[in-house]
Amino acid sequence: MKTFYSNEDILKMGKEFSRRYRITQGAKFQIKDAATNDITDRLGSKETARWRARSFLDCANQEMAVLQEKLYAQKTYALLVVLQAMDAAGKDGTIKHVMSGINPQGCDVSSFKTPSDEELAHTFLWRCALRLPEAGKIGIFNRSYYEDVLIQRVHPEFLQSQHLPPKRITRKIWRERYEDINAFEKHLTNNGVVVLKFYLHMSKNEQKKRFLKRIREENKNWKFSSGDIKERALWNQYMNAYENVVRATAKPWAPWYVIPADHKWYARALVAMAIIDTMESLDLRYPEIPDEQKKTLKDAQKLLKREK
Amino acid sequence: MKTFYSNEDILKMGKEFSRRYRITQGAKFQIKDAATNDITDRLGSKETARWRARSFLDCANQEMAVLQEKLYAQKTYALLVVLQAMDAAGKDGTIKHVMSGINPQGCDVSSFKTPSDEELAHTFLWRCALRLPEAGKIGIFNRSYYEDVLIQRVHPEFLQSQHLPPKRITRKIWRERYEDINAFEKHLTNNGVVVLKFYLHMSKNEQKKRFLKRIREENKNWKFSSGDIKERALWNQYMNAYENVVRATAKPWAPWYVIPADHKWYARALVAMAIIDTMESLDLRYPEIPDEQKKTLKDAQKLLKREK
Repeated sequence: MKTFYSNEDILKMGKEFSRRYRITQGAKFQIKDAATNDITDRLGSKETARWRARSFLDCANQEMAVLQEKLYAQKTYALLVVLQAMDAAGKDGTIKHVMSGINPQGCDVSSFKTPSDEELAHTFLWRCALRLPEAGKIGIFNRSYYEDVLIQRVHPEFLQSQHLPPKRITRKIWRERYEDINAFEKHLTNNGVVVLKFYLHMSKNEQKKRFLKRIREENKNWKFSSGDIKERALWNQYMNAYENVVRATAKPWAPWYVIPADHKWYARALVAMAIIDTMESLDLRYPEIPDEQKKTLKDAQKLLKREK
Repeated sequence: MKTFYSNEDILKMGKEFSRRYRITQGAKFQIKDAATNDITDRLGSKETARWRARSFLDCANQEMAVLQEKLYAQKTYALLVVLQAMDAAGKDGTIKHVMSGINPQGCDVSSFKTPSDEELAHTFLWRCALRLPEAGKIGIFNRSYYEDVLIQRVHPEFLQSQHLPPKRITRKIWRERYEDINAFEKHLTNNGVVVLKFYLHMSKNEQKKRFLKRIREENKNWKFSSGDIKERALWNQYMNAYENVVRATAKPWAPWYVIPADHKWYARALVAMAIIDTMESLDLRYPEIPDEQKKTLKDAQKLLKREK
């Protein structure tokens, strides 16, 4: 009987778990069926699951560092990781814990907050397009152009500030934006930018606990704004908007992962495993040197050895 | 007798070591006096030093993560870390080992390679100014505007591609660029961007060893270009250019650290310690919430608790 799990065992299990939350055909997605707290029989007791998730994350961090170096050297693919969630669902913590062990030179994190006047005067994809990762890099979007079909959909009055021709603001605008997003992500995929989208799905009750903690602990006060409570009051509208987004934009080439996020350690492990799983599918390797360049290397070697 | 060093002991020692390589008044700097391999009596045997440097780096990584979170929350200072060195001196490895472990959301790495046509048509500070870190962040420049007084000085013919008015290309151009750089760094300092500059100082013989390794190991071939050998032939001119740069631009508000880089582990530890030392001098802390905002927090707390 096996009494110890190897890294390989753990990565295999972790990747399989993460695939349970991957949606590549959104049409039938219903948010009411998506788990926020998925510590099932299969995962063992809560205590076992906690240890397991921790091992998942440790193994994933090591593996990701190896894969990232190849991605960087090969300079053929880029990875775009989009993170969306309600306030306090753990986007920042996920970035910190999932991406911390990797080389920051190969990873760019962009946070998209309230758009500036300049950003509002461009199309909603523009500010994100400017921050896309170049070949060889991992780009993390902390929020993204999906805000324009989430917060905008819940607050359609914000459309007024986007400098749109009045005739373009119709009931079809959300459908049109989904189409724009799908075309944009297809374009990225066609050009070697691999798109992965995560929605960290937390229960309304878990958000309440986390908000109270941010208020209680002085060092966390800066993370809380009173606006957060106002958005919380629109919870159902947001859930509806997320459901529509996943339905319209989960595609085989740009899947959504709807990650149960009530347990931070489990959510982080799943995100890490999904990234590994995707990177492994890319056949990353160190670039091969063409023959004529091998000759140049040999010449350089001779020159160096001949030096006194 | 003390038989074990605490983190505090190690950080104290490490910071003291790093200060030995800090230059705040450049006028008398002579590169021939700068060590590339400084495993002195004071550091113990090479084996002791190796363990010590490793502990330095471990402690520094932990400490930096703590300081970075405060920097990020406070959003008052930014840190600009400039790395300059000859090829293969360890810039990439330093970024990887010194900055892994910190939250990539708070750290932007910019590599400045051969300038594009658009970059050449702007002043030499322009492309770097675009990538400056915002308040709360650490920006790492892998190469920088210092290339314009290093590689440019060794190859003055490159000035021709910088779209300069012919009258501006005189013998005084380097002096003028140093003045521009000093004024730029003063401006940054005046506005809360703390500037730290590292020159990783490696011996010519150590570069030879590392080049040969890059040729020998196939996985490292991609890091080597035949142009590297051509620049190596200009070693003395480069050393001269570095000496002039440190003399002209080491200032109390923007020091140069001339780091002995023949031992990678020692160089990395020193860079990490110098960054910690600087961050500790900034009195970083979590932002205090003004009284009226505390009231808002209390109200939010009540609202949340009243929810069913």
